[in-house]
Amino acid sequence: MIEPAPPLVIAFDGDDTLWHSEVHFQAVQDRLRALAAPWLSGEELDRRLLATERANLTRYGYGVKSFTLSSLEVLLDASDGDLPGPAIGELLGMAKELLDHPVELLDGVVETLDSLAGRVRLVLITKGDLFHQWCKIEASGLGPRFERTEVVPEKDPDTYRRIVTELQIDPGRFLMVGNSARSDILPVLELGGQAVQIPYEVTWAHEHHDDEAHWPVLEEIGEVLSYVPETGAAGRR
Amino acid sequence: MIEPAPPLVIAFDGDDTLWHSEVHFQAVQDRLRALAAPWLSGEELDRRLLATERANLTRYGYGVKSFTLSSLEVLLDASDGDLPGPAIGELLGMAKELLDHPVELLDGVVETLDSLAGRVRLVLITKGDLFHQWCKIEASGLGPRFERTEVVPEKDPDTYRRIVTELQIDPGRFLMVGNSARSDILPVLELGGQAVQIPYEVTWAHEHHDDEAHWPVLEEIGEVLSYVPETGAAGRR
Repeated sequence: MIEPAPPLVIAFDGDDTLWHSEVHFQAVQDRLRALAAPWLSGEELDRRLLATERANLTRYGYGVKSFTLSSLEVLLDASDGDLPGPAIGELLGMAKELLDHPVELLDGVVETLDSLAGRVRLVLITKGDLFHQWCKIEASGLGPRFERTEVVPEKDPDTYRRIVTELQIDPGRFLMVGNSARSDILPVLELGGQAVQIPYEVTWAHEHHDDEAHWPVLEEIGEVLSYVPETGAAGRR
Repeated sequence: MIEPAPPLVIAFDGDDTLWHSEVHFQAVQDRLRALAAPWLSGEELDRRLLATERANLTRYGYGVKSFTLSSLEVLLDASDGDLPGPAIGELLGMAKELLDHPVELLDGVVETLDSLAGRVRLVLITKGDLFHQWCKIEASGLGPRFERTEVVPEKDPDTYRRIVTELQIDPGRFLMVGNSARSDILPVLELGGQAVQIPYEVTWAHEHHDDEAHWPVLEEIGEVLSYVPETGAAGRR
């Protein structure tokens, strides 16, 4: 087996790779289940919400505001148009809580980025609502650690191709690190790039990917360091 | 008076500079006034909506989804929590109509961009919801005419400074063209850049700017051609 050349650029996903996100959505979805309880079982709420979010994806895109509008649509439909005011108020409050939630970095993120600094070019590629992602990047304090920060509407091969081209490197020297097989791994492999997955504790149903991983799966972000030769760093010190 | 050096980059705003946007919001706001009529006068609806949108700006950012969530908040509050299901359904429908609306270019846009091609570097800088802006750029067919397309969360001096730096030009050789004094003109002038305003038929209250313009105000986009020397083009033909 031929070892791939060491990456010149390592790109990190944001949500659930650098900072917690899906746990907050799941906590809110639990409360949504309670709101919908007069009309729907928890499973039925989950099923309808996923279907509605997917149907609205080409119109709303990703993020908290999209999630909120789809949730409202599901609740309105489930209640046959008889949605109590307090339920709507609670939904709007939940959206604001999600958006206002402080950014909590995952373990090892700062140490890993600090160790990589100067040894490889670092990029952040995150998907979702532009404004909220931008707020999270600001709040994370991680922005200055990256040469470049990209908030993209969808993580597909075309998006990665554009970024790799703008970075002026061969796709084979680009390594993507993220939690989602669907968004962070498969489109990068399709391009001839390298990708390693660090699964998060929970995965949004939309991002579920059932095939067996035929790419490296790490347990924690610190393992990314093994992809960059130590010697380069030592030589530069 | 010293004439400024001709621009090396001309950057265009998107909404209400290249394509219609605010007229669609205003049409929807008329329907919102009708929805709110049981509780609020039209003026009161406008006033509360603007105040709510502004209060939510640091959390929601710009765009249709933000507008919809703020509208829902106003209606819920105005109705004292007794908002009829059909009104909510109509609000959600209005949001989808706004998002699905076909992109209509303003007069002279294509001709002007075609005339500028090859004579000056062209950039698109648009503010708002990432996903919707990206859909509009796609639908406009204008994307390939621009060297670079930036969807930014806010048009402030820092944003323009970053873009001008990345374009590797002196701010004095950067010309911004847009409809909003607040977003397209003032922050660029603050940076030492050039800016010309092409007012749109209607202006969102949030973007209103009452001071007299001390910058060039054009009547139509074709007048931008006068900012680029003809000779360069002739020499290259």
